[in-house]
Amino acid sequence: MYRSHLAGALRSADVDQKVTLAGWVARRRDHGGVEFIDLRDSSGTVQVVFREDAAAEAARDLRNEYCVQIVGTVSGRPEGNENKDIPTGDIEVTAHEVTVLSISQPLPVPIDDHVEVGEDVRLRHRYLDLRRSGPTKALRLRSEANLIARNLLHDRGFAEIETPTLTRSTPEGARDFLVPVRLQPGTWYALPQSPQLFKQLLMVAGFERYYQIARCYRDEDFRSDRQPEFTQLDIEASFVTQEDILELGEAIVKELWSKLADHDLPTPLPRLTYLDAMNRYGSDKPDLRFGNELVDLTEFLQGTEFRVFAGALAKGGHIGAVVMPGGASQTRKELDGWQEWAKARGAKGLAYVLFDAETGEPKGPVAKNLSAEHLDGLAAAAGAKPGDAVFFAASPDKREAQELLGAARLEIGQRCDLIDQDAWAFCWVVDFPMFEKTDEGGWTSVHHPFTSPNPEWVEKFTESPDEALTYSYDLVCNGTELGGGSIRIHDGQLQERVFETLGISEEEAREKFGFLLDAFKYGPPPHGGIAFGWDRTCALLAKSDSIRDVIAFPKAGGGSDPLTGAPTPITPAQRKEANVDYVPPKKDDAQA
Amino acid sequence: MYRSHLAGALRSADVDQKVTLAGWVARRRDHGGVEFIDLRDSSGTVQVVFREDAAAEAARDLRNEYCVQIVGTVSGRPEGNENKDIPTGDIEVTAHEVTVLSISQPLPVPIDDHVEVGEDVRLRHRYLDLRRSGPTKALRLRSEANLIARNLLHDRGFAEIETPTLTRSTPEGARDFLVPVRLQPGTWYALPQSPQLFKQLLMVAGFERYYQIARCYRDEDFRSDRQPEFTQLDIEASFVTQEDILELGEAIVKELWSKLADHDLPTPLPRLTYLDAMNRYGSDKPDLRFGNELVDLTEFLQGTEFRVFAGALAKGGHIGAVVMPGGASQTRKELDGWQEWAKARGAKGLAYVLFDAETGEPKGPVAKNLSAEHLDGLAAAAGAKPGDAVFFAASPDKREAQELLGAARLEIGQRCDLIDQDAWAFCWVVDFPMFEKTDEGGWTSVHHPFTSPNPEWVEKFTESPDEALTYSYDLVCNGTELGGGSIRIHDGQLQERVFETLGISEEEAREKFGFLLDAFKYGPPPHGGIAFGWDRTCALLAKSDSIRDVIAFPKAGGGSDPLTGAPTPITPAQRKEANVDYVPPKKDDAQA
Repeated sequence: MYRSHLAGALRSADVDQKVTLAGWVARRRDHGGVEFIDLRDSSGTVQVVFREDAAAEAARDLRNEYCVQIVGTVSGRPEGNENKDIPTGDIEVTAHEVTVLSISQPLPVPIDDHVEVGEDVRLRHRYLDLRRSGPTKALRLRSEANLIARNLLHDRGFAEIETPTLTRSTPEGARDFLVPVRLQPGTWYALPQSPQLFKQLLMVAGFERYYQIARCYRDEDFRSDRQPEFTQLDIEASFVTQEDILELGEAIVKELWSKLADHDLPTPLPRLTYLDAMNRYGSDKPDLRFGNELVDLTEFLQGTEFRVFAGALAKGGHIGAVVMPGGASQTRKELDGWQEWAKARGAKGLAYVLFDAETGEPKGPVAKNLSAEHLDGLAAAAGAKPGDAVFFAASPDKREAQELLGAARLEIGQRCDLIDQDAWAFCWVVDFPMFEKTDEGGWTSVHHPFTSPNPEWVEKFTESPDEALTYSYDLVCNGTELGGGSIRIHDGQLQERVFETLGISEEEAREKFGFLLDAFKYGPPPHGGIAFGWDRTCALLAKSDSIRDVIAFPKAGGGSDPLTGAPTPITPAQRKEANVDYVPPKKDDAQA
Repeated sequence: MYRSHLAGALRSADVDQKVTLAGWVARRRDHGGVEFIDLRDSSGTVQVVFREDAAAEAARDLRNEYCVQIVGTVSGRPEGNENKDIPTGDIEVTAHEVTVLSISQPLPVPIDDHVEVGEDVRLRHRYLDLRRSGPTKALRLRSEANLIARNLLHDRGFAEIETPTLTRSTPEGARDFLVPVRLQPGTWYALPQSPQLFKQLLMVAGFERYYQIARCYRDEDFRSDRQPEFTQLDIEASFVTQEDILELGEAIVKELWSKLADHDLPTPLPRLTYLDAMNRYGSDKPDLRFGNELVDLTEFLQGTEFRVFAGALAKGGHIGAVVMPGGASQTRKELDGWQEWAKARGAKGLAYVLFDAETGEPKGPVAKNLSAEHLDGLAAAAGAKPGDAVFFAASPDKREAQELLGAARLEIGQRCDLIDQDAWAFCWVVDFPMFEKTDEGGWTSVHHPFTSPNPEWVEKFTESPDEALTYSYDLVCNGTELGGGSIRIHDGQLQERVFETLGISEEEAREKFGFLLDAFKYGPPPHGGIAFGWDRTCALLAKSDSIRDVIAFPKAGGGSDPLTGAPTPITPAQRKEANVDYVPPKKDDAQA
């Protein structure tokens, strides 16, 4: 038997108990010739003192992170030596015997919650990084989150069903990771981007309530917080309306936040339509921890002669603005910085007007180009006070202008400290558009082609595809998208009309979604679902900035794992066996 | 709202309730001009009757597997019309309104529990196959099994931690599935064969108790019941002994069998050493539902002049036997059949002696070659009675002979109906050998090179590697291996001695396991674990012969999915992007 008690669980009530502990030497110190260590195990730490000669001798050979077994007796700490900062601070263990279970070389990274080292080194020695309390807690929290979500779903009659991860490539959307199939030379599996098609098949199969914490894969260029493999809490249900799914989604986050963030989430959560979110926040994942909403100045600035604004208006475009409280006091350098900031986002710049803190007079280069009438009414129209700055975006493309201002709003929120870091601001964004224009002038699905139009648009979406709205929804918290989903189309004729609008021929539809369309011939139920980005949800719960904190062994940039060294070259024998040198027979209609 | 009640949940207490139901038309029939349907949803079925004119008219258009919504009133069935075979058999629903939610074309496979169709057709239309009660139940049982195992592990302080599935190829053991990495041309991820290395790293990280229901991948030639992707309930713990892991494993199966098979499993489970299992059952996964153990005749038959036996004995080999009760009455054709059976297993044949049912006289070709003394004592030595047959296997390789007899024992068990099909016969097989001889005369690990020798062998395994035993264990039920594991080596010097015995150089060890060996420099805890073959465990619980029954979308032979058509060729553009045409720079030491 390696232990009788967990180190971190010992309390005053255990005084005089003889205990056997096992764990790691977290810290050694010498107090007036007496050796002390903090012994750490999965439950916490306890102070061990070596007052007895034999034990003290053994203790002198201990080094940090040695794995040891201690036999000792619990005693109260001498008065005045208690440590109220740790749960075991009232007691200590007087060691009688010490057994070194394994030794440790000097550490390449310090195991200290207060020392920050570079991520690459941390990931290379992740097994040491994870001995720190922060990373440990983040992964344990994730384990709890899994359990909470699973139990809730189970209690509501959902069955957990695994779907394949060696599946068929659908050459559209994001890039698939591919796996050559040795037994069928020239053919490949694809790793799934989501269980979408399979969960819909399970609805056709009559399961009615399905969920899975599913690994998904997307071969994208690496952005800071993307992983080539990621995890979704994936849910689908039959005979449900959008309201049912929203209620379920709310129940899940309410339970998670109640149990893991000690926060009572008032439900129902606020809802914003997509259009509202764009108009007010310039984002489909608005951060509602602060206000400072965008303003539409398109009407107000009609007739302006300022070239930049007039150009946008001439093309039927949009002029919007956002206020930066106190922004009039910015230095020239700060104002120039905003121009760089805008350019990095693909804009030409960021027009601004400053309102003098004393007089309220509008100032700056743009002000010189505006008529007296516009200058007079501007502060009121934009909601600016003396001392504020107003930033403008004007574009023939309304969304483009709004997105720039939405990003500026977030930046202002940070810089002006408008964001309550302790707040949890949830909302649903609903009524997403059904289609968006392609560069070729056709239509493409905003979500996916199985997303159902809402009742208002079922009949008439073909008439004005640009205005058609769907039964779809994203769950947003603090400006982060936690999940999203939709009600799916279960009517074959409606599906055909959608394909027509998308310019997808029957043949093409067959090629891409044949097996799903086949399934839908046999009494598909009305159904819909939601998927939570589980890494992101857990990161938010853990108050982490990065999803890497809630992944045991995350990839670094470029998809590399500094720990294992993956990916690696393979041997010529492996290449040969995997048939990757296989050259497919030339087909006349092969794509270039 | 699609429904107010679940169809299968309605009972006499609901009589006079107005209900809204949604589900599928399972069966239509006409009784004296009145239309009836069985309405099926995820909860079961209920009889719906169309007595009212408007509803009856709508009902006439219904076809099997139409998805419908019914508004009606529950009433008791007329006396004498109750159906005691189904839970809703006392009532029926009189329909007022019928809404067709979606129609169904005529079915390519009947949805009928009593009709068996070919597996390929079933898998191609798996979404229909899964509407049958058997397949549905099997997947729901699996969902329950997950929950039971997870809750038990959670209650014992285990954390669920996901490990990577895009990882590093280790070119040994089974073949890896490989994934080309677009962002790093010429490099590949491998899909993991198990989370083994990562779970050991989590122990080094101090998690102490880890589990995961993990997808694993193995690119093997397809045998009847293998899948390229499969699932493991993977468990690892620190500061544990073999006894701790066995107790945990027993707790898991006890809970599963109690809740899902209504069977109270007496624990502790019986244990057999590997040697015992081979000697008595000719298998390391013995089927203990019946006895009929193997007999060792090596001593008894010393000095025989029968060429086949003498040849094996001359090489220090083994002669074993197994009795077939009543086997003396087999026809010539049946006895010849056994020879074919043995040849299909790579043996030369299966020697036998038949004991006359009346006289007990030994008969058959082998009997003619045995001395009077051997013939006299044979029945007693083999444990045969008059009317029995005795089959022999003789080989210089003891294990070969035992495995042949073990297979014969199972075959006898089937043919002679010795197996209680309702029995659950669990056992642990323990004390597996540490090494086995390679064809080149060296040693290879039976389990893996991190498996710890047991205390008796820690010091002396280098002296007689062929006899050394480990802390390793397999859990067996009804002749099926459900899981297995070991206590791992956590002592760097011991690990080095194992690598030496295996003839693995320091460089080679670094190359293969470098990151694990690095981790083990920093105070690794004593640890060990177990992994359950989860597909197989669930199949056994579901009393299914095939793991495919407990997989939602299994692959057919050759790794094909008849439903999606995976795997498929990829486009030249995909090949190019995946860099699979990349030719690595030639290295002098590249393998052929």
